[in-house]
Amino acid sequence: MKTVGIIGGGFAGLSLARKLANHKDINVTLIDRRNHHLFQPLLYQVAMAGLNPSEIAEPFRKILGRKKNIEILMSEVTSVNLKETSIQIENKKRVFDYLAIACGSHHSYFGNNDWEKWAPGLKTLEQATEIRRRILFSLEEAEKEEDPVVQKKWLTFVIVGGGPTGVELAGSISEMTRTTLFKDYKHANLKNTKIHIVEAGERLLKAFPPSLSHKTTRDLETLGVEVHLKTQASHLGAEGLKLNDQWVDTKTILWAAGVKASSLGDCLDVEKLKDGRIIVKSDLSIPNYPNTFVLGDQAAFLSENGDYLPGLAPVALQQGEFLAKNLKKELKGNKRDSFRYFDKGIMATIGRSKAVVKTGSLEFSGFFAWLAWAFIHIAYLVHWKNRFFVLLQWCWSYFRFGKGARLIVNKSWRSYGDKNKEEVEIGSS
Amino acid sequence: MKTVGIIGGGFAGLSLARKLANHKDINVTLIDRRNHHLFQPLLYQVAMAGLNPSEIAEPFRKILGRKKNIEILMSEVTSVNLKETSIQIENKKRVFDYLAIACGSHHSYFGNNDWEKWAPGLKTLEQATEIRRRILFSLEEAEKEEDPVVQKKWLTFVIVGGGPTGVELAGSISEMTRTTLFKDYKHANLKNTKIHIVEAGERLLKAFPPSLSHKTTRDLETLGVEVHLKTQASHLGAEGLKLNDQWVDTKTILWAAGVKASSLGDCLDVEKLKDGRIIVKSDLSIPNYPNTFVLGDQAAFLSENGDYLPGLAPVALQQGEFLAKNLKKELKGNKRDSFRYFDKGIMATIGRSKAVVKTGSLEFSGFFAWLAWAFIHIAYLVHWKNRFFVLLQWCWSYFRFGKGARLIVNKSWRSYGDKNKEEVEIGSS
Repeated sequence: MKTVGIIGGGFAGLSLARKLANHKDINVTLIDRRNHHLFQPLLYQVAMAGLNPSEIAEPFRKILGRKKNIEILMSEVTSVNLKETSIQIENKKRVFDYLAIACGSHHSYFGNNDWEKWAPGLKTLEQATEIRRRILFSLEEAEKEEDPVVQKKWLTFVIVGGGPTGVELAGSISEMTRTTLFKDYKHANLKNTKIHIVEAGERLLKAFPPSLSHKTTRDLETLGVEVHLKTQASHLGAEGLKLNDQWVDTKTILWAAGVKASSLGDCLDVEKLKDGRIIVKSDLSIPNYPNTFVLGDQAAFLSENGDYLPGLAPVALQQGEFLAKNLKKELKGNKRDSFRYFDKGIMATIGRSKAVVKTGSLEFSGFFAWLAWAFIHIAYLVHWKNRFFVLLQWCWSYFRFGKGARLIVNKSWRSYGDKNKEEVEIGSS
Repeated sequence: MKTVGIIGGGFAGLSLARKLANHKDINVTLIDRRNHHLFQPLLYQVAMAGLNPSEIAEPFRKILGRKKNIEILMSEVTSVNLKETSIQIENKKRVFDYLAIACGSHHSYFGNNDWEKWAPGLKTLEQATEIRRRILFSLEEAEKEEDPVVQKKWLTFVIVGGGPTGVELAGSISEMTRTTLFKDYKHANLKNTKIHIVEAGERLLKAFPPSLSHKTTRDLETLGVEVHLKTQASHLGAEGLKLNDQWVDTKTILWAAGVKASSLGDCLDVEKLKDGRIIVKSDLSIPNYPNTFVLGDQAAFLSENGDYLPGLAPVALQQGEFLAKNLKKELKGNKRDSFRYFDKGIMATIGRSKAVVKTGSLEFSGFFAWLAWAFIHIAYLVHWKNRFFVLLQWCWSYFRFGKGARLIVNKSWRSYGDKNKEEVEIGSS
């Protein structure tokens, strides 16, 4: 009997665990700080009040709890010993035959970690509800504000980062304020909402072909979004930020820029890229440690064309499945294979009926791209129930132009003029 | 044109606002600290991971935002001036012709407010998700715990208060742990979960006839719940509490006991009951202040049989509708009516296919009572979308014995051995 320890239940860790389920010669321990797998590609829809958290998150126990050879621990791994293939959890040491490290990535503020307070990123459910809270709270404050200068600040939103997440956020904030909600406010004119998207590079969606980037810029501009290219965001604060040399007044900044691999890698004395990704061999193992693997966003895997593979859900999924296959192979006494990524394409959505898709040599955009986007995201959800409920929510929203989950829960960080209130206020009327 | 200020958008305030909507001679301002109306009768299902918050909460703007004569302010009223019928919001004074105070109630810890930390109540969405988090977190800790004594503590749940909320919580914790989830845990035997319900009075559900109270006790005992009657809870802490003279080890206590009217009433120099409810006249106005009304849980209304009306959703609903009618009458120059409560009955659910109903002289329990309970709760939800989604969730859960929303969001208050972690951890892997 061999033991496999999996740290992290994202796309990589979960697909590895699922493929090892019910194997008679392997015992799996899946460790995650959370009790659920998160379908990150739809996270921005939770932030934009279109979906409920439970519709894109699935408890590990619900997916794997009844598999006989899988143990699930909700816990934090504090260190990894590569020589022993052991880990430390809550002051206890656990030794495994194989170790798979798949802790993902988080946002990077390029050394300005104090910016996080002013510009939350979008990687977890908590961040999604925090972003939702900030946007809806801004609209409520704008409604109450009598000074037009301050009101304008509340109605200005800046998104830093022009990748898929930034584009999705910019498009949907525009649609939400200008189309869905503007009739619900009496004093604030939501048609005046100003949305800026800021990209340091030369074009949005730089992983896509230039023609689709330009299409995306045009689509966003149609939605009233101001696109700033070759622009650096700096001096983030409670009242605004600098875009290159120009100061922009705003109460709401969202961060969709840099990405850094999980900090669990920091304690490992192995070769890493600047962004913290651990360089792995062709079988995903760490050089000199053949039984420890790194998968998903945390891994730097050199592909055939000389680039490191990007941090995408399909890469992570395929790496998890690949590793499961390789381990089973090795147990039968065969040699390990090398990982090859099968690129099915990339896609991003810009708003209602708008998306861009690139698959192979095919590029397309518009309504059919959007339908393809919707279909594929539904198909990849973990559970039938989620597919069903997400589809229902989308149909309802599409035909009614409504928003499913416009709730402000918990106190805002700006709660009623910065009084020192508890985050969760218990027991008051 | 007359102005009506409504403080609080619960059942009373919301029904008043809805009935005044589109009235050409009345302008309404609805003020609430939150942006949503909450359907409290189903709140325990959010706590028990059966429903999503958005399924039982509805933003005020979605309900009333497009009514021309209704202004909605998400804000906190800091004081009320009865002589002027004015209120103070965020350092601004607002004067109205009529004022309706409907701020509801919160839990009372009988002078031991420090108990709140150990035993959250169930009045808001935040509290519901906090209770959900504590229960699920306890099960995860039990799964990891190797010491059987400590594991038993994690698997022991104490509910203080034997009213409908306490009974609903006890019944559903038992079903959730012993029926739904027990197969998902490898090390902790959830069949050994111990649930205590504690009532100071002589029987559970004291608003119901004794025969239904006894039926409820029997039903709970069948579900493995230990019922403690004539029992005082005291000495609440992180490791347990005292039930009369006996110490019970537990990591999870929930509070469903005393109720106290909103603290906004504290600043008013008017006659109140011990529980803070403001005594009102037959037209719901405060004696000597004919244009200020108190409604719902915050009002003490003496009914014909000499008792004050209980704090129930139907009472609040009817009072809101009654006041709207009375105001319209007065504007036409007619005399005000007196409020009369039409008691359609009371009901409580104990678990899957189990409930008790009393309506008029009719009492019944069991499956048909449960169906009646479900039907009536669906019918009273505010919006068709919510009715549809709640019904779907229930059907799915009923036939699959599943739980819809088993997510632990945010860090637990006990997060990993009381390290000082942020409530919402941003940006880590």
